[in-house]
Amino acid sequence: MLNIMSNANIIDGRKTRDALLPELTEKIKTLLKPPTLAIIQVGNRDDSNSFIKAKKSFAAKIGVLERHIQLLESVSTAELVKVVQECNAEQNIQGIIVQLPLPIGIDRDSVIDAIDPRKDADGLTAKNVKAWLEGRGDATMPATARGIKELLAFNGIDLFGKKVTIIGRSMLVGKPIAMMCLNENATVTVCHSKSENLANETKSADIIISAAGKSRLIGKDHVKAGQIVIDVGISRDVEGKLTGDVDFDVVKDVVAAISPVPGGVGPMTVLGLFQNLVDLYKPTTVFSW
Amino acid sequence: MLNIMSNANIIDGRKTRDALLPELTEKIKTLLKPPTLAIIQVGNRDDSNSFIKAKKSFAAKIGVLERHIQLLESVSTAELVKVVQECNAEQNIQGIIVQLPLPIGIDRDSVIDAIDPRKDADGLTAKNVKAWLEGRGDATMPATARGIKELLAFNGIDLFGKKVTIIGRSMLVGKPIAMMCLNENATVTVCHSKSENLANETKSADIIISAAGKSRLIGKDHVKAGQIVIDVGISRDVEGKLTGDVDFDVVKDVVAAISPVPGGVGPMTVLGLFQNLVDLYKPTTVFSW
Repeated sequence: MLNIMSNANIIDGRKTRDALLPELTEKIKTLLKPPTLAIIQVGNRDDSNSFIKAKKSFAAKIGVLERHIQLLESVSTAELVKVVQECNAEQNIQGIIVQLPLPIGIDRDSVIDAIDPRKDADGLTAKNVKAWLEGRGDATMPATARGIKELLAFNGIDLFGKKVTIIGRSMLVGKPIAMMCLNENATVTVCHSKSENLANETKSADIIISAAGKSRLIGKDHVKAGQIVIDVGISRDVEGKLTGDVDFDVVKDVVAAISPVPGGVGPMTVLGLFQNLVDLYKPTTVFSW
Repeated sequence: MLNIMSNANIIDGRKTRDALLPELTEKIKTLLKPPTLAIIQVGNRDDSNSFIKAKKSFAAKIGVLERHIQLLESVSTAELVKVVQECNAEQNIQGIIVQLPLPIGIDRDSVIDAIDPRKDADGLTAKNVKAWLEGRGDATMPATARGIKELLAFNGIDLFGKKVTIIGRSMLVGKPIAMMCLNENATVTVCHSKSENLANETKSADIIISAAGKSRLIGKDHVKAGQIVIDVGISRDVEGKLTGDVDFDVVKDVVAAISPVPGGVGPMTVLGLFQNLVDLYKPTTVFSW
């Protein structure tokens, strides 16, 4: 079932990303101009800084330009919407992302829905949400869902007809992953903090995708032989160590294959964002340069 | 678990609707003017005619006005959008629905998304889709999902923590029902035509909601004692008899409670539409009359 990108039973996100890079960079070279991603950040959160750093360094690697617009924590919703609109109007920008979370007091929906859906690299505007909920081929899907789709496909894991149990129901991760799997013809179960018998739901699945953000939520009792486990969670345990939702060391010996944290979904999410950006680069905009 | 509106183990949609009517009609009486629903129909399909007839008769019963706009099958997308925009602009219209399906050749998305989200009584515009996907309290939910929510709540069936298996993944029915159940804190499994082991998925549920539109898809082997079965399907069997997705006569003797077809979800869907309409009636529009 798994191909060469899996070392033993590890589904390696970095190796998969690297294997998909040549195709993406080749595609970028065929464009008239390198695409530009606008990254709008409010404030100076450590986690946001580190995500943005990863995006910038990946952009540089594949020949994509980025414009990082960092605004003071005190910015108003109206001012932020204005910045988004300026990026909409700027012909040299093909994709826009607003780094989340935004400070409390900012109306997130107004800011996100100000993004021109044709430049919505994160797939979070209402128009794109409806499109990916419908499973339209031209929908821009949130980067994590896209990254997981590519990770599974590249590693020879087919979703068609499979039973997938997803843990988590957020708008950024759980719900788009659920819709992606459903649109790929999987039978999809969504669990969350109010679910009873989580272990029943995970054990009866062919594929488990955990996006709860709870360190080591999924242990030996939640899994069985033959399963595929994709870990989307990322948190720090009491000792400050970076962990996923899955108790990797014990689960890896039970299941058929598992993606680690770090080095699993994370690198694929960054790839997914830039795949979105390249897809948004429409030839029709070429003529206005 | 079930209250007086269930006769034996039948979850009666007509009785539930009738029991909820006084509250709705009282609410309508407190409005400065009766609300008006615009029903836009293209062509003259028998099924559409019969659905519209049911809506009109219900409107008359509860003191709601309707404006039925019937256009020729040959209408263009642009002309249809213009009609929608006229309804948006008309202050005496509080809700708009476009009767589906539309003829092939009409761009459905353009027509639906032309509806002012504040008048979107069917909850199908992109803005509303995103809102109900997020589980926002102010979202207008498609009428069938709302009707089922009310049917379950009134009959004392709580979704919290329950395992719900939904059959069907359409944008009008399956997906909104799934999101409604998820937002009510159920553990939700979505099955469809590509699902393997449908019976496994239905048998492991506390509540089965079938929206496949396949006559008698769910039989005795799909259910077990103690379950709640909600039948959303409506089709005709080979003898022309109106049936649901569930083989009612055999399933009703196994499960704890079941909603029939007709007389189950159908009447609740009509109620849900008019509950949506009344919710859309905003006091702020009062002053422009």
